[in-house]
Amino acid sequence: MKNIYLDNASARPVEPRVSEFIRECLKDTFGNPSSLHSAGLEAKKIIEEARVKVAELINAENENCIIFTSGATETNNLAIKGVAFRNKEKKKRVVSSDIEHISVLNSMKELLKNGIEFNTVPVNSEGIVDIEKLSNILNSDVVITSVMYANSEIGTIEPVKEISETVHKMGGYFHSDATAAAGHIPIDVQKDGIDLLTLSSNDMYGPQGAGALYIKPGIKIQPVILGGGQEKGIRSGTENILAIAGMGEASKIAKKEMDEEAKRLIKMRDELIDGVLKIENSYLTGHPTRRLPYQASFRFNRIEGESILLNMDMYGIQIATGSACSSKTLEPSHTLLAIGLKHEEAHGSMVLTLGRANNTEEIPVVVKAVRETVERLRKLSPL
Amino acid sequence: MKNIYLDNASARPVEPRVSEFIRECLKDTFGNPSSLHSAGLEAKKIIEEARVKVAELINAENENCIIFTSGATETNNLAIKGVAFRNKEKKKRVVSSDIEHISVLNSMKELLKNGIEFNTVPVNSEGIVDIEKLSNILNSDVVITSVMYANSEIGTIEPVKEISETVHKMGGYFHSDATAAAGHIPIDVQKDGIDLLTLSSNDMYGPQGAGALYIKPGIKIQPVILGGGQEKGIRSGTENILAIAGMGEASKIAKKEMDEEAKRLIKMRDELIDGVLKIENSYLTGHPTRRLPYQASFRFNRIEGESILLNMDMYGIQIATGSACSSKTLEPSHTLLAIGLKHEEAHGSMVLTLGRANNTEEIPVVVKAVRETVERLRKLSPL
Repeated sequence: MKNIYLDNASARPVEPRVSEFIRECLKDTFGNPSSLHSAGLEAKKIIEEARVKVAELINAENENCIIFTSGATETNNLAIKGVAFRNKEKKKRVVSSDIEHISVLNSMKELLKNGIEFNTVPVNSEGIVDIEKLSNILNSDVVITSVMYANSEIGTIEPVKEISETVHKMGGYFHSDATAAAGHIPIDVQKDGIDLLTLSSNDMYGPQGAGALYIKPGIKIQPVILGGGQEKGIRSGTENILAIAGMGEASKIAKKEMDEEAKRLIKMRDELIDGVLKIENSYLTGHPTRRLPYQASFRFNRIEGESILLNMDMYGIQIATGSACSSKTLEPSHTLLAIGLKHEEAHGSMVLTLGRANNTEEIPVVVKAVRETVERLRKLSPL
Repeated sequence: MKNIYLDNASARPVEPRVSEFIRECLKDTFGNPSSLHSAGLEAKKIIEEARVKVAELINAENENCIIFTSGATETNNLAIKGVAFRNKEKKKRVVSSDIEHISVLNSMKELLKNGIEFNTVPVNSEGIVDIEKLSNILNSDVVITSVMYANSEIGTIEPVKEISETVHKMGGYFHSDATAAAGHIPIDVQKDGIDLLTLSSNDMYGPQGAGALYIKPGIKIQPVILGGGQEKGIRSGTENILAIAGMGEASKIAKKEMDEEAKRLIKMRDELIDGVLKIENSYLTGHPTRRLPYQASFRFNRIEGESILLNMDMYGIQIATGSACSSKTLEPSHTLLAIGLKHEEAHGSMVLTLGRANNTEEIPVVVKAVRETVERLRKLSPL
């Protein structure tokens, strides 16, 4: 039985060209970038080259806008707490959408302990942030508003430019978590009006253990992890050189191949969607067209997402039900509740995320497995 | 010209057996350990096996005492802020030695902003913490005392058991940063009476990007990075599986080979010390015998450490002057000032740290290069 991996939003295989690039870097050095001797200087050079590649992916003003971290979760913590704590004498409110990643929501909630008020803005049934409601929630006391670039669980791409304009009218900073979007759809932080952007290495086929925060020139934030003052004092700790080198190379490849790969994936994605929606009582979640190229998500009446996942695994097909990050709780996904699903509806969710390793021949195999799985589970269902 | 790398305390080459182990893990999976399908379960298994290996290295009560992080700096932040914030309603003081790593000192200083008092305890001229002074500084309001297991800049191993007993008499928690010690000298957290211990992957020849915090069963701490609740809710963020797998294997190898390797290194270290001390006006820094097996550090009158480093680099020999983490500032090392050196004395420091790749034939080559370097620089010196 051939394995078909359709859980790329949870973890992506490292691109072989990135692995090869890392191996080449390893030959040059293993030094500490803070060391003053030749091995240290070579390590530093590797990091600075990666910084340029990441900056170019999102059209940052320059490479000094990029701060490397250990991953997207840390980056979201740094962006939100970093801005909020730095400005806490002046402004006392923070805002996010209802469908943010749990690392954004939990960072915002932690601020409550420090006398900061946290409000969320709702999304419509397709997962799009309601600009009018956002406008009503904002005032000049809001220091940071966080809305993700795109949501990996329902695929929806947010109207980031409109959101940033709305936020800036009230004088606050706009942070966007682009974990699911970067490297897959074009991002231009300058055109989009983004002040802080979260990037993840593995989500664009780089190695795990690296992430980055884009900070617009002139914005000052308070560090979360303190120490030797690496990364311009914003993120201390000896740099994870190879992961950073890999993230740089992954960014470079993504920038070059994104358009073509997106076309290929959208074709497959839409075939998947058409095939699955032929199953009775199946529904697409998220926006039908403003949607990540690699993402197809559904809900089915009267069956459990976890049972779908385990049944599909028996076909050798790996999928997700909601976000991997919240798979351990039995709570229904906060994103699915936010788009208006009832608890029992939110439990019947299936998320398929395509990647570079997938091909068109797999699509009918997957659709057939989904159909058989759903029919089998419905027969067994007491509901 | 053969390269001789003697800056292992700044960065260690990854052990080839560890790299091979990582490659094997890569074959099995690249899944997200939080995913419920088979790829996720395999990733989870890899992490849990690593946890056992790290626990065994330090004789932890069980593997659930080990929390994986992105490295030692993050771990020190987590230990100190985690304990201090969790208990801030009850206790309002923290204590460290004068020679802690900058990530410990800066984490403690950050607590000052939150109404917590921070005091340091001095060390003697050999870098050993003064137990009597520690005893005088402590009272029942001290929530955490942090003293490193050993100092990589002067090589001194602290009397950890006496320190933990002194700390526990006053009812506080004892944290020890074992970045420089773990994997090189035996550590038994239970016998040593350690409540929290910091471990670094790369410092024991594992990959960069992983660290761990040992937390004694029953001790509760507040997380620093919030999100999906990975690592028992204490450190959120998708796990850096391969770095964690590598850290586990590095721990296993270190546990098995530590005694024999220490004997080999001590012989080389003492030859280095004997050879260098024959140079006029050269002095050993740190304790002559209570000393890390891989560490030899010196100071020379009338010359600059940075000049020594750059001169040695021209011989193809990489060394350090003070800690890599503070190499960017022109300030003299706080550790060297703490052992009583004057500013001008602290500037003439040289730190040689041996590793698995070094061999006895290199020692006379290094001693000769040091002698020539010191003589050349002294001739040029205006002092």
